[in-house]
Amino acid sequence: MSNQPILISQALASFDALWSPRIVTRVNDYDVRVAKVEGEHIWHAHDDTDEFFLVLDGELHISLRGPEGERTVRLPKGAVFTVPAGTEHRPFAPSGAAILMFEPTGTPTVGDRHDEVPAHVDATTGHVLDV
Amino acid sequence: MSNQPILISQALASFDALWSPRIVTRVNDYDVRVAKVEGEHIWHAHDDTDEFFLVLDGELHISLRGPEGERTVRLPKGAVFTVPAGTEHRPFAPSGAAILMFEPTGTPTVGDRHDEVPAHVDATTGHVLDV
Repeated sequence: MSNQPILISQALASFDALWSPRIVTRVNDYDVRVAKVEGEHIWHAHDDTDEFFLVLDGELHISLRGPEGERTVRLPKGAVFTVPAGTEHRPFAPSGAAILMFEPTGTPTVGDRHDEVPAHVDATTGHVLDV
Repeated sequence: MSNQPILISQALASFDALWSPRIVTRVNDYDVRVAKVEGEHIWHAHDDTDEFFLVLDGELHISLRGPEGERTVRLPKGAVFTVPAGTEHRPFAPSGAAILMFEPTGTPTVGDRHDEVPAHVDATTGHVLDV
């Protein structure tokens, strides 16, 4: 973990890959990750953990499947949202977005249950930031 | 916990108090808090938890006391930094700032060890957001 502040803009400028988070810092046993996203992720669920999203740029949509059916929330720049543990969800960003996530270290990007993983989605627990 | 996205700008517009965090969402047993700050906080330490800062606006300085003496990090808008558990630190913002913090629910703003708390610092575990 860096003992100096990290500029999110520099972190985002250090990579191009979509749906492929970089770990910018750790807090106890949690990761703070940033990612560039565009198009669709996959339907997936994290059985044992909530997942926090902050939209840094652009707009992120998250579809959610709950007891009352399916709904979609839209997060413009500067919005925060937590997907509850166990909730099937699918992030997508028609025009692209940059996001910050907060979740336990080791949490896979595709969750514990998920659709088939297409080539454009990186199934990872996050990559080391190289700035 | 809201089941709708929350705009950080609206959360910040809902209160004026300085050094008095509002909880915008929860992630498992962690809080995501936002605060307006200006001037000096106090020297304090959280014995059992790291503390994450993201500067949303303005500039935050954090002085830190470590084995090698005292140093100060400066976080401009868009910077992230984690204060390690047990590290004495003092946030200050000469010209004001808005910040987002991430820490275990119940973490006191003045830590487990601290200097005398002056009137302008709210000793709290965070307030409910009213938007």
